[in-house]
Amino acid sequence: MTVITVVGAGVMGTAITFPAADNGHEVRLVGTYLDESIIESCRDQRWHPRLKRAIPDAVQPMWHTQVGEALRGAEVVVLGVNSRGVHWAAEAIGPHLQPGQIILMVTKGLESGADGRLHLLPDVLAGCLPDAIRDQVYYAAIGGPSIAGELAARRETSVVFVSRSAEILPRVRQLFQTPYYHIWTSTDLVGVEVCVALKNPYALAVGLVAGLLEKQGGADDAGAFMHNPAAALFAQSLAEMAYLVRLLGGGPETVYSLPGAGDLYVTTQGGRNSRMGRLLGLGLPYSEAVEEMPGETVEGVDAVVAIMPAIQQMTDQGIIAVDALPLLRTLHAIITRNREVAFDFNRFFSQLPFNPPV
Amino acid sequence: MTVITVVGAGVMGTAITFPAADNGHEVRLVGTYLDESIIESCRDQRWHPRLKRAIPDAVQPMWHTQVGEALRGAEVVVLGVNSRGVHWAAEAIGPHLQPGQIILMVTKGLESGADGRLHLLPDVLAGCLPDAIRDQVYYAAIGGPSIAGELAARRETSVVFVSRSAEILPRVRQLFQTPYYHIWTSTDLVGVEVCVALKNPYALAVGLVAGLLEKQGGADDAGAFMHNPAAALFAQSLAEMAYLVRLLGGGPETVYSLPGAGDLYVTTQGGRNSRMGRLLGLGLPYSEAVEEMPGETVEGVDAVVAIMPAIQQMTDQGIIAVDALPLLRTLHAIITRNREVAFDFNRFFSQLPFNPPV
Repeated sequence: MTVITVVGAGVMGTAITFPAADNGHEVRLVGTYLDESIIESCRDQRWHPRLKRAIPDAVQPMWHTQVGEALRGAEVVVLGVNSRGVHWAAEAIGPHLQPGQIILMVTKGLESGADGRLHLLPDVLAGCLPDAIRDQVYYAAIGGPSIAGELAARRETSVVFVSRSAEILPRVRQLFQTPYYHIWTSTDLVGVEVCVALKNPYALAVGLVAGLLEKQGGADDAGAFMHNPAAALFAQSLAEMAYLVRLLGGGPETVYSLPGAGDLYVTTQGGRNSRMGRLLGLGLPYSEAVEEMPGETVEGVDAVVAIMPAIQQMTDQGIIAVDALPLLRTLHAIITRNREVAFDFNRFFSQLPFNPPV
Repeated sequence: MTVITVVGAGVMGTAITFPAADNGHEVRLVGTYLDESIIESCRDQRWHPRLKRAIPDAVQPMWHTQVGEALRGAEVVVLGVNSRGVHWAAEAIGPHLQPGQIILMVTKGLESGADGRLHLLPDVLAGCLPDAIRDQVYYAAIGGPSIAGELAARRETSVVFVSRSAEILPRVRQLFQTPYYHIWTSTDLVGVEVCVALKNPYALAVGLVAGLLEKQGGADDAGAFMHNPAAALFAQSLAEMAYLVRLLGGGPETVYSLPGAGDLYVTTQGGRNSRMGRLLGLGLPYSEAVEEMPGETVEGVDAVVAIMPAIQQMTDQGIIAVDALPLLRTLHAIITRNREVAFDFNRFFSQLPFNPPV
């Protein structure tokens, strides 16, 4: 029997236990120190309170103190913590990893490194693991539109599993694919990681327009909404993703398929990033908007804050064009400097082979 | 004073008179023979009944019998008829065109030619014009997310003006750009025309999922919708657009920016294509769904029917890969052969550098 261990019992970590359990694997779900009440509920009532759903019979909920036991004999270790939790997770799993294990990251993100460059999260994780094991395990990640509650409901879900180690991909896909969980594999780690890291901030940006519209009283008498400006932001988001993907060595097809366009689309359909966008679009400064969403992590905010130092340094060094990322910069200014929510549309698409407005 | 003449008084043809009028041009709005009641309302009450908005003072509504007079001295002739009207429009304007005039097409589409190939609508139009004038005028088109009612409400709208004749683009942009109408220019006529032709059918395809969800009673007890499958269709739509764009010689950046992703996004936010998608997703055969939308042109349906003969011939000839366009083929079968609404997700993304599900 194959053992799959998921570290992090949030909605996404738990959702992926559904296809794993449906495939007959032994699945261990380890909460972090923040997940104690979730694990308690999973153990006592077999009920995940945030997914609002019973967990599969094959899933064994475990405390974070049991992480060593949980990793023993696992073929795949799914990392389901949020972006802030990667360093904690590395410390927690590092001493217990065994050679040949595959780390499959649900956790998304890019980080600014001490060297002033952008680092892919699998590389950040690897850097935090003990020297002795770092090169003895495999790293893989998941990109694509996958709302956790829908995956757990066994809705048709299509994703990309990505790894620089092409040889492990067929096996990882085999472990997780089901009639409702469709998995493509790719070696474009850069493309997938850039897209998954940026879809949250860009969905937040698209969501700003909902707030702007509401602020001026909604649709006008003739029924005009603000889908045109939202769509321009959507397109600019993909163009900025494509710029960074190309700069870091990834492929454009990752941007216009599941990891980029698909995931951005799904993320604009609701969720915390959109709600934060609406509040900011309504005119609340970030400090007040945050208070309207107590205790909630807004990944789009975390991601912008995590990557902007490197973006700035790479711009100062001439690696990133000054005018390449106007939407990301606007979003950063809105979040960190209470900048008014407004867009200079004419500065968009400057890196495409179009002639810009004059 | 610059004269701009719009032929076709539907919502989009009329909407573009707003930026033209705001720029101080003399604008003539010529109805087709189907637009008589619209022109009557525009003349008598200065009111466009479908836009539900007063037309600008500078706009002069004219009957289709006045088309010769309307074209006289116009620098730009905007073609605002729907795809079915291109042949009529060519006959109507052909005898009156003057050398040097610019034809700017709002009308979108691809057509199957008698040669079994796909033809861009500007080329179809050119082919229908009298020999003497065909090479004496310029052809341009508009792509990008632009809901007519929002443009007429002077919402921020971002579009691409495209022409093979690069030299006219700065001038056309200058005539129409305003603080709310942002215009990029491009010479990727193939990219833009493929995207604008296909965004309606693909928005209809994404809309099918809303019907599927409703048919099974909406969200489940835990609140799971069907955004994941819709997002996969959205991504596959872009991948199929990208395939055809590349095949016909256009650029991928047109797909992942305003004309492709932006316009597809805006078209999925509502409108007739989405409504037709919902009805079909609910399980109505096309013949019944059509009766639920009496008198309404669903451009996505027209487009699929118009292009599929060429797609089929080009596939038979080995020009188009058999497995390249599964979503378009599924949509065609749903519309023309009452095929059940269901998707073989595993066949998606076959033309990308990903390994497909097995």
